[in-house]
Amino acid sequence: MAAAAEIADTDVAAAVAAPTGAPATAPADGAAPAEDSEAAAAAKAARQLEKKLKKEQQKKEQKEKKEKKAAAAAAASAKKKGQSNEGMDVGKEEDFPRWYNQVITKSELIEFYDISGCYILRPWSFSMWDSIRDFVDVAIKKQGVRNAYFPLFVSQDRLEKEASHIEGFAPEVAWVTRSGQTDMEKPIAVRPTSETIMYPAFAKWIRSHRDLPLKLNQWSNVVRWEFKHPTPFLRSREFLWQEGHTAFATQEEADAEVLAILDLYRDVYETLLAVPVIRGRKSEKEKFAGGLYTTTVEGFIPSTGRAIQGATSHCLGQNFGKMFGITYLPESGGAAKTVWQNSWGLTTRSIGVMVMTHGDDKGLVLPPRVATLQVIVIPIVVKGREEEMASHARRIADELSEAGLRADVDARTDKTPGWKFSQWELKGVPVRVELGPRDVEASSAVAVRRDTFAKTTYPWASLVDDVRALLDVIQADMLAAARATVSSRITIVHGWEGFVPILDAKGMAVAPWCTTVECEEDVKKRSEAASLAAAAAASAAAGEAAGEADERALSGAAKTLCMPFKEELDKMGVPEMAEGACCFACERAAVAFTLWGRSY
Amino acid sequence: MAAAAEIADTDVAAAVAAPTGAPATAPADGAAPAEDSEAAAAAKAARQLEKKLKKEQQKKEQKEKKEKKAAAAAAASAKKKGQSNEGMDVGKEEDFPRWYNQVITKSELIEFYDISGCYILRPWSFSMWDSIRDFVDVAIKKQGVRNAYFPLFVSQDRLEKEASHIEGFAPEVAWVTRSGQTDMEKPIAVRPTSETIMYPAFAKWIRSHRDLPLKLNQWSNVVRWEFKHPTPFLRSREFLWQEGHTAFATQEEADAEVLAILDLYRDVYETLLAVPVIRGRKSEKEKFAGGLYTTTVEGFIPSTGRAIQGATSHCLGQNFGKMFGITYLPESGGAAKTVWQNSWGLTTRSIGVMVMTHGDDKGLVLPPRVATLQVIVIPIVVKGREEEMASHARRIADELSEAGLRADVDARTDKTPGWKFSQWELKGVPVRVELGPRDVEASSAVAVRRDTFAKTTYPWASLVDDVRALLDVIQADMLAAARATVSSRITIVHGWEGFVPILDAKGMAVAPWCTTVECEEDVKKRSEAASLAAAAAASAAAGEAAGEADERALSGAAKTLCMPFKEELDKMGVPEMAEGACCFACERAAVAFTLWGRSY
Repeated sequence: MAAAAEIADTDVAAAVAAPTGAPATAPADGAAPAEDSEAAAAAKAARQLEKKLKKEQQKKEQKEKKEKKAAAAAAASAKKKGQSNEGMDVGKEEDFPRWYNQVITKSELIEFYDISGCYILRPWSFSMWDSIRDFVDVAIKKQGVRNAYFPLFVSQDRLEKEASHIEGFAPEVAWVTRSGQTDMEKPIAVRPTSETIMYPAFAKWIRSHRDLPLKLNQWSNVVRWEFKHPTPFLRSREFLWQEGHTAFATQEEADAEVLAILDLYRDVYETLLAVPVIRGRKSEKEKFAGGLYTTTVEGFIPSTGRAIQGATSHCLGQNFGKMFGITYLPESGGAAKTVWQNSWGLTTRSIGVMVMTHGDDKGLVLPPRVATLQVIVIPIVVKGREEEMASHARRIADELSEAGLRADVDARTDKTPGWKFSQWELKGVPVRVELGPRDVEASSAVAVRRDTFAKTTYPWASLVDDVRALLDVIQADMLAAARATVSSRITIVHGWEGFVPILDAKGMAVAPWCTTVECEEDVKKRSEAASLAAAAAASAAAGEAAGEADERALSGAAKTLCMPFKEELDKMGVPEMAEGACCFACERAAVAFTLWGRSY
Repeated sequence: MAAAAEIADTDVAAAVAAPTGAPATAPADGAAPAEDSEAAAAAKAARQLEKKLKKEQQKKEQKEKKEKKAAAAAAASAKKKGQSNEGMDVGKEEDFPRWYNQVITKSELIEFYDISGCYILRPWSFSMWDSIRDFVDVAIKKQGVRNAYFPLFVSQDRLEKEASHIEGFAPEVAWVTRSGQTDMEKPIAVRPTSETIMYPAFAKWIRSHRDLPLKLNQWSNVVRWEFKHPTPFLRSREFLWQEGHTAFATQEEADAEVLAILDLYRDVYETLLAVPVIRGRKSEKEKFAGGLYTTTVEGFIPSTGRAIQGATSHCLGQNFGKMFGITYLPESGGAAKTVWQNSWGLTTRSIGVMVMTHGDDKGLVLPPRVATLQVIVIPIVVKGREEEMASHARRIADELSEAGLRADVDARTDKTPGWKFSQWELKGVPVRVELGPRDVEASSAVAVRRDTFAKTTYPWASLVDDVRALLDVIQADMLAAARATVSSRITIVHGWEGFVPILDAKGMAVAPWCTTVECEEDVKKRSEAASLAAAAAASAAAGEAAGEADERALSGAAKTLCMPFKEELDKMGVPEMAEGACCFACERAAVAFTLWGRSY
């Protein structure tokens, strides 16, 4: 197991580290020719910065050595007492990849596995997926969607039927070629998504306008054997999701559903996970392979300055319908017509975005609505009164549970209250209720918020209602705090000059854009080059080999995240597009304000 | 699609037909030498029987021709009116394989797929799986089991770690060897079950007695690339299941859980699906590969005379614990000890057993507790009063729904009430509520039971309570009826003579048995030979080629189903084992009364 964990460890560190790219202020130098006079000055600044960083690094290393020694001594002492120290030993802003790795494993969300890109979802994370599932399932059933289950495998013929669709997935498809010791006659693919699995059946089931709309969904696992560095939850080779697949008589109905589902996905993120997202439409380059257009809810991780696609709702148009012959006889009579189709999906990635958004240096911070456990009651035991305190704590936990809250008591006798506080903070439980002898005498208890550590004393008489209200406040506050941070990272840009520095400062840019594929590819190249140059400069200053710099900046290219909807632009304070406005990156006329950033 | 459906069709027909084997009374003759004097007489009887069967067959064929003509005319006429005839056209006892094929497709449980052994679970069946899932999930959570999710893939090293375990699964494992166009360094297996995927993590998580018991479960898909003929639900290459995996400090705890889970599985079958099962222990030959012992709930399909394993609860003992190093430090101090483990699973097969048990010539018959829809309200429309009748029907359906019943109204205007009756009978909805003009005038409605077609008139005032009570009665009656049939097929046998004829008469035998592997293998061979001989005799009489007879009797061998628990033997009226009792099939001493049969 140790070896496996180490392999996966490296995966994570590389994956989360690589994207952060070059230091925020370091510009082009050395390997790349300076483009203008600013560059020389910037290069100097970069060298100074690097020196400073180096010194800081040395200091940090010394400090870490000391801390490690102390931690080892503490751990040894704790082990003697039978209490190992399992807390976090790295800060979120100090070393984000290591922090993420620790928080997901130490809080028992994830266990690493010996196949790269595959992870174990432990009960603490799986119960959150169950909450998300319940939330989505109730909502889509109200919209008339029914659940079904389609096979894991798809034949090559089917998979390759829609050309642009398979082009999008081909390099990531896992193929089964053998059963037992026998080679199969024809290899079969493990589903990367189920359009081509489902639609031949749609063609059979849909005959008349009376068979429409057809709205199906499935909860399943899919496999995409990506070669990008895997990251637990965010980018894994197998993941869990729901995929909705619907067919309509008209484009109007399909369009309306695309937006209704997108709003549901926003609700999953904002209402359930307290994670703010921005709704918009994907560019031609970024849309779903084979579809007509893609809408998305985009999240953002402030610590890394990277955006992340939260969930997507696609209008497939009539492409698949034509390929698979999905037609219906219209009510008005006449020839058969091709249906309009949508597909939409939300994955276990959502849990990772939530963890990255809310976690802090002490571990997970869970929004109450999705928390496996909302309240943990901990008796502060005094010698001779152990059973008395524990029974009060148990009674309070029972009262909370009976009122429908997810509450439990930690009455273990082999752990100290302090150890328990750390443990449940690590696991992110939103409210801790402490109960000491003085509290018992006063018939009250102390509630401690996980998000702010604020303490409030509540009388027993109103404790259930008070805690319930507190959970609601925490839920709202967590969303508000996360939204304020994300909003502060969005800058309106009109030309190229400000663009890369904004990304380098871990931000996103909203800019008037021409919406052409050529321009997006050009921006990608230019921003990557700028990053590479900056990284090379920083790297030269730090005395690294050239290869390392390449590695660091490799994912430094900017891409479009979405063209935000009007409502979202209004919230960001983006004005109407001026007449004759130009694209921020080329000579063409601007068509839409578009959100750009680095991304996972 | 037509081609795919045809392929799968053939699969089903072959799979369900082959096992029924030879006619009940036909003994050895022709190709196989007669064993004793009885055989000659039996051969004569068989020839007479064959003649009789042939005549009956000719009559049947003529009748079918007539009926087909009539049906075609009716269908043509219906098509003109826009109402195609989609009902059953074969009886359950007339041609069981065709019946099963029709009932699962026409009622919209299953859609065939172009990969053999893989099927689409449509909403009508998937909602039943959801019901089963809810039922099991609530119960196991009460027992302290938590849900998690482990990867779909397993490396070869891990999979092959427990020798007898992999021996049991090796020929059925699907291997992924390629991603995109790239051959993988090492092939990875798609999980056939998850012991070897989970237990290395168990070894990591379990350190102390405080970490025990560990009780995890997952709901997932698994793949077993079997070469036996696939049958939808009963034997598919991918299926859905839950798999529980638990670890305990002592064998006593493990033993107790094995039985608690087995009782839960009995409840799923009997309480939810109204399918009677027999609890018992598997023989050494039939137990789970790598485990210590296996308990099972065995079902039985009267129409084919075949038993079917309903679900299994295994005690794994310490085999896997030793292989994967799953140890704990005991509370009493001292050296680390190996844990005791269980694993247990219930699959989508349960739906197929339910369909086969209850279905009739008109289609599905669903037990109310698992029915997607429990009540369908159908207005009997009269010209000029369409909207009035429909609105009464809607009101009644709403009242039933609000009371927590799963009810709907079929107010379609393009279908006749008669068409709707057939349609909802085909889909197995337990109660139909008819509402005609006279009913409205009397403020009453007529409820029709799907299981018995009995009609009762209820006043509107008490309709909700009456229908609720009726659903409970139906649920109980369906179990009682199924149980009576299964019980009537169990015969106590003390020697070999009666054994094969009982199986040939579509029954099961309870017999004193020595419990040795050698004897079970011997019984298998002897019963298969008897079947082959009987089939050859029948076949010769019918003028078939020898190969066909082989095909028909191929799965005719008997095997142990289980050694029923004492309570189950008591229910069957099996007496205490007599002192000095001999095995029914060999010279050894009898050890346990054992249930034998042909099986799926």
